[in-house]
Amino acid sequence: MNLIENKLIELGFPLEIPKRPVANYLGSKRAGDLLFVSGRKSELKGEVGTDVTEKQAKKAAKETIVLILAIIKNDIKDLDLIESIVKLQGFIRSSINFTQQPQVLDGASELLIELFGKDGHHARTATGVAQLPYGATIQLDMILKLKTL
Amino acid sequence: MNLIENKLIELGFPLEIPKRPVANYLGSKRAGDLLFVSGRKSELKGEVGTDVTEKQAKKAAKETIVLILAIIKNDIKDLDLIESIVKLQGFIRSSINFTQQPQVLDGASELLIELFGKDGHHARTATGVAQLPYGATIQLDMILKLKTL
Amino acid sequence: MNLIENKLIELGFPLEIPKRPVANYLGSKRAGDLLFVSGRKSELKGEVGTDVTEKQAKKAAKETIVLILAIIKNDIKDLDLIESIVKLQGFIRSSINFTQQPQVLDGASELLIELFGKDGHHARTATGVAQLPYGATIQLDMILKLKTL
Repeated sequence: MNLIENKLIELGFPLEIPKRPVANYLGSKRAGDLLFVSGRKSELKGEVGTDVTEKQAKKAAKETIVLILAIIKNDIKDLDLIESIVKLQGFIRSSINFTQQPQVLDGASELLIELFGKDGHHARTATGVAQLPYGATIQLDMILKLKTL
Repeated sequence: MNLIENKLIELGFPLEIPKRPVANYLGSKRAGDLLFVSGRKSELKGEVGTDVTEKQAKKAAKETIVLILAIIKNDIKDLDLIESIVKLQGFIRSSINFTQQPQVLDGASELLIELFGKDGHHARTATGVAQLPYGATIQLDMILKLKTL
Repeated sequence: MNLIENKLIELGFPLEIPKRPVANYLGSKRAGDLLFVSGRKSELKGEVGTDVTEKQAKKAAKETIVLILAIIKNDIKDLDLIESIVKLQGFIRSSINFTQQPQVLDGASELLIELFGKDGHHARTATGVAQLPYGATIQLDMILKLKTL
């Protein structure tokens, strides 16, 4: 049925073939009904508060969720197998004075809720860091619960 | 019976009604018997090593656990449903020369052990970061195991 | 049989008795079939990109996995009880211009794969931070799945 993928297309985010991880790890790993998803960086680079605005960073957080969903689809084949979004961890590359990390991460959370409805509501942690891989603005990882077959 | 809540009262920490999350997320989310708790910032603001002393930060870590327990109570209704504390993650906003993050996080760990006894002993990670939401000194999240009903 | 320990010896990494945690926490905590391992710092200190080279940091990441495996052995008695490596989280103390955190963390990932084969492949997140406990270069924590007895 591809309900989630169709919603993504309606929202203007068709899934693309994900890039392979830049190093020696998997896109995601399953343990029982939990799926642990690797950290994915945003395409956007730069530090929020100096190089990048809060609004740009929020948009990048949303786009990073689309990149992550493409990875998950590649791994589990069908996004409709996701039962719920459990935990989102967001690292935001922040200038020393930027403290609106929650507003940035809302770009990711809002898309997850739009896609998965009630099951998309999640726990999360939004942390500011001084540097991220390849100078990316955002890095997100997630824990999902899969449907029991 | 409210054993844990009564212990908190004895220790001088009656639970208050938690503030709502500052953005679009849940206080906690359950997956099977695990409860994933969102990152909660301390009321105390400032950087440890410059604005804030190690002792003040340790006290703030303890107080943040009380704030988290109020959120968990709001979500699962009864803290006695907690079987054990599994993992604590602490981000401590640190000046470039401050490296005693474990001593700060002990403020949180000691209260958990005092409240939950043997089941309160946990794995944890204490990390220094340059910035946190709203300039907070401490940010904690947790994974708990709930009793199987 | 101690397959994993014997492989470690062949690779030149006999397990030593782990140091006790520097503060009030466990080396690891089990919840169901998942084992949550506490953050372990590298013996190597210093910031990658200034005090420490990428190559030295990668080697330190590998050595930190050996330290973690010694802790896990101490806790669960037999490393052959590990079914798979699920998630690796790496914090790398990085200078403001160092963005090769994934290459550093590969030192850890490659050893896990060498030891555990297909089951050693894992999800992971590699994040740069400005400070770590005791000035360490690397801090790693992990989630493992244990064999169901």
